[in-house]
Amino acid sequence: MAVYTDVSDEALQQFLALYDIGDLTSCKGIAEGVENSNFLLGTDQGQFILTLYEKRVDVDDLPFFLGLMDHLAAKGLACPVPIHDKSGGTLNRLEGRPAAIISFLNGMWVKRPHVEHCTMVGQALAELHKDGQDFAIVRPNNLDQQSWRPLFEQSRSRANEVRKGLAQTIDAELEFLEENWPADLPSGVIHADMFPDNVFFLNNRFSGLIDFYFACNEMLAYDLAICLNAWCFERDNAFNVTKARALIEGYSSVRPLTPEELNALPVLARGAAMRFLLTRLHDWLRVPPGALVVPKNPLEYMKKLGFHMDVDSVAAYGIDV
Amino acid sequence: MAVYTDVSDEALQQFLALYDIGDLTSCKGIAEGVENSNFLLGTDQGQFILTLYEKRVDVDDLPFFLGLMDHLAAKGLACPVPIHDKSGGTLNRLEGRPAAIISFLNGMWVKRPHVEHCTMVGQALAELHKDGQDFAIVRPNNLDQQSWRPLFEQSRSRANEVRKGLAQTIDAELEFLEENWPADLPSGVIHADMFPDNVFFLNNRFSGLIDFYFACNEMLAYDLAICLNAWCFERDNAFNVTKARALIEGYSSVRPLTPEELNALPVLARGAAMRFLLTRLHDWLRVPPGALVVPKNPLEYMKKLGFHMDVDSVAAYGIDV
Repeated sequence: MAVYTDVSDEALQQFLALYDIGDLTSCKGIAEGVENSNFLLGTDQGQFILTLYEKRVDVDDLPFFLGLMDHLAAKGLACPVPIHDKSGGTLNRLEGRPAAIISFLNGMWVKRPHVEHCTMVGQALAELHKDGQDFAIVRPNNLDQQSWRPLFEQSRSRANEVRKGLAQTIDAELEFLEENWPADLPSGVIHADMFPDNVFFLNNRFSGLIDFYFACNEMLAYDLAICLNAWCFERDNAFNVTKARALIEGYSSVRPLTPEELNALPVLARGAAMRFLLTRLHDWLRVPPGALVVPKNPLEYMKKLGFHMDVDSVAAYGIDV
Repeated sequence: MAVYTDVSDEALQQFLALYDIGDLTSCKGIAEGVENSNFLLGTDQGQFILTLYEKRVDVDDLPFFLGLMDHLAAKGLACPVPIHDKSGGTLNRLEGRPAAIISFLNGMWVKRPHVEHCTMVGQALAELHKDGQDFAIVRPNNLDQQSWRPLFEQSRSRANEVRKGLAQTIDAELEFLEENWPADLPSGVIHADMFPDNVFFLNNRFSGLIDFYFACNEMLAYDLAICLNAWCFERDNAFNVTKARALIEGYSSVRPLTPEELNALPVLARGAAMRFLLTRLHDWLRVPPGALVVPKNPLEYMKKLGFHMDVDSVAAYGIDV
């Protein structure tokens, strides 16, 4: 739940005068997304999303994010595109923050994904990976495997407040990941946050991807591992192997995975679980008083990590080896 | 900031099947309003507002609220109307709550109203009062003058936590209001919550009223007194007499005020300030842990009340007597 920044009438009018999107007829704050302030704008030309980038987003990364949306849309991937202003730019300032207007994407995210959604997510992810191959800008993954131990050090002393023994479990797992993290897998632009609320469907067909604000250059199969965690566990944290198979087969039908990528999936899934465990743990221990956003429980990702720690091979994900 | 209730995909589809509003293309939670859960629906026929009524709204009052919108819109007042379902009803249930679909109203509320807005608000309020005269359903004002002392009793023992001496000030003022509250003024349907966020403008012209969920039968001039408090004080709580004159003259241009109503305005303004002071005090002292809504500061209304306590006559509101 978001909308952090109040936008005054005058500032909004001045901002919109930079663009050629018609006369404003409505503006409503959207109660979704936790990183930025989002407003749904109506004009006599249609609907648009106005995003004000809050402090979690580095302004230097915005040309990558906005350029990537333009690049992927030009390749035919369904995603919102930044609206270019009258001088051709896509990034301006509003209420002291970097701000952009993005096209409106029809569709809704599914709260309880079925197997068919996982197939389509896998396909869309592989399309993104293919379409991103010749994108010119590079953005390193600032939440990559090497960042995890320093990130954990910030929460280490209080980790056992969340669960007894959690610090020791994470320590051992970080050591495992340091020793076993793959290095030579195919890499490129990944979405890095393809959770259900970032994938839209319309009449049970894929209609587009949103929220590219974690996208970066990384091993492609790591993105699939993130999806495995985000899409293939049920609400009780039980792993659904049918969904996992659908996700991986959907992906492979567009971009076949190499044997090395398939073999690395279990360790990548452990790493992907660790990455979200650590950021959630960090946020969980630092809820500001009066916070409007309830942080996500880190233990959900500890349970997912625990599942993958018991996995011997990709066969556990429903894939024949 | 709202959206309290999560709506599942299946429940939403079942609910929408009751209506003939086309195929759903988008659904976004709206981060405004504090009483209900509101979603902006897009369909191939246009935009609609889906409202789930949360516990603060009495389900027995909904036929009054929804019927009133239908009635006022039929009279030509710009306001949203409930969409009738395939069997003609306007009220159904979704996720265990009463729910309705309301038409989408273009326009935006003004965060910093100017004098001209106050004129238009006065006119719109008077139109509402005229148009509501022959509405068949009656809803007593459950926040009327007689309710204030029992309401205060729920906060009395803790009022001085908010400001030293607040309990004594309120006590004395309640006594004054009990002795001086007018009785025989013209009454009818009032909006009772016509704050800036409930009045929409488009290109600086009035475009409509929303949020009728406090509407009730009451003295009409009391509604004007509520607006006097909501529209004619600046952010530093200074009273803007130019705005007050504009509001009252705008109102009078549509529905002339009787001499009794004009004379009663100062005491009505004290009462209107008391009503919002008391509900805000009540909510301020009862913020649940982890609340998503930051309550409004009751002292804003204590300052407004203080202004009116020093007023001798309606001349203080810019009106010649």
